[in-house]
Amino acid sequence: MGKVTTGATMSLDGYIAGPGESGFDLLFQWYGNGDVEIPSASPDVPPPHISAASAELIKLEWENTGALVVGRHLYDMTNAWGGRHPMNVTTVVLTHRRPDDRPEDDENFVFVTDGIEAAVARAKELAGDKHVVVNGGQIARQCLEAGLLDEVGIELVPVVLGGGKTLFGELGPTPVQFEGPIAVVEGIGVTHLRYRVKR
Amino acid sequence: MGKVTTGATMSLDGYIAGPGESGFDLLFQWYGNGDVEIPSASPDVPPPHISAASAELIKLEWENTGALVVGRHLYDMTNAWGGRHPMNVTTVVLTHRRPDDRPEDDENFVFVTDGIEAAVARAKELAGDKHVVVNGGQIARQCLEAGLLDEVGIELVPVVLGGGKTLFGELGPTPVQFEGPIAVVEGIGVTHLRYRVKR
Repeated sequence: MGKVTTGATMSLDGYIAGPGESGFDLLFQWYGNGDVEIPSASPDVPPPHISAASAELIKLEWENTGALVVGRHLYDMTNAWGGRHPMNVTTVVLTHRRPDDRPEDDENFVFVTDGIEAAVARAKELAGDKHVVVNGGQIARQCLEAGLLDEVGIELVPVVLGGGKTLFGELGPTPVQFEGPIAVVEGIGVTHLRYRVKR
Repeated sequence: MGKVTTGATMSLDGYIAGPGESGFDLLFQWYGNGDVEIPSASPDVPPPHISAASAELIKLEWENTGALVVGRHLYDMTNAWGGRHPMNVTTVVLTHRRPDDRPEDDENFVFVTDGIEAAVARAKELAGDKHVVVNGGQIARQCLEAGLLDEVGIELVPVVLGGGKTLFGELGPTPVQFEGPIAVVEGIGVTHLRYRVKR
């Protein structure tokens, strides 16, 4: 069975978003500074153009992803990625209440209202042998706290934001130790680091 | 002339100290998990034993350091490292008031009361062709804000602390962009990353 992983692009001072949801242009420079196009299944999100070194890693990770779990905040903020997630997989949305404008689960979105365990379990069913990726910081935090997370990926970029949102937010039972990095890949303006949760 | 650099050991979620000054045992595991001893000039600080890969980098950096600048908080917290800093160089202490128990500047400590520019200038004189290292987060932040910092080193360790002190604290004029990493070295349980401040 696949792993449950999360990932985020992070500043040198540990922020995945700057003060007041700023800094995304600086954090995601590496999404547009290379020659290799990564296809995007979203009509709203243009395909990233990243360096060959980054692409070798990211392409494989996208191909090996079978389903996503995201929070309602991310789903709303992105306007449901215009209908389908860029990674071209079914996205499980953890929410208190199903959105009115999307009454049935379909191949694009599945809504789960009974907690993080149920959301991850549903995503694992959908993913089969492939991996489940969980996103936003709050969802990643819940997975880590519930012992559901296997790996974390950090795309470390050379900017200092001075404040904002941290990788897992305010964690309950900390500290948490990891193994690794199990992979280090140097892109252009980004260092990709992969870690395994220690059990 | 030498560079002005700072460095810190940082958790995956961007903290250089955990909540309530906790987590140092986890952050600094890499100081004791290797076979190569780095000599310490401090009677209070035992010599680090680090991996060969880490030592190749750290030894060179220590040898190329000609003076330090630290804040009064660090000087007090460490009890002046028992009389001399582990790196075996003169330490410039930025303080509002000279300590009563150390009336004269000597080869171990020099006290500067008129601001970060004066402290760094004094350290540069002492360092000659070698580099100046500035420490604690608040001192590093002041140097970055004053345009005095040339490089930053991060020792990224596989632990999540969930809260605490960040690398530069709350920065005024952010964001700040860097170049690099200009060096990436994989130790045991630590990834050493070096960046250059973009001007």
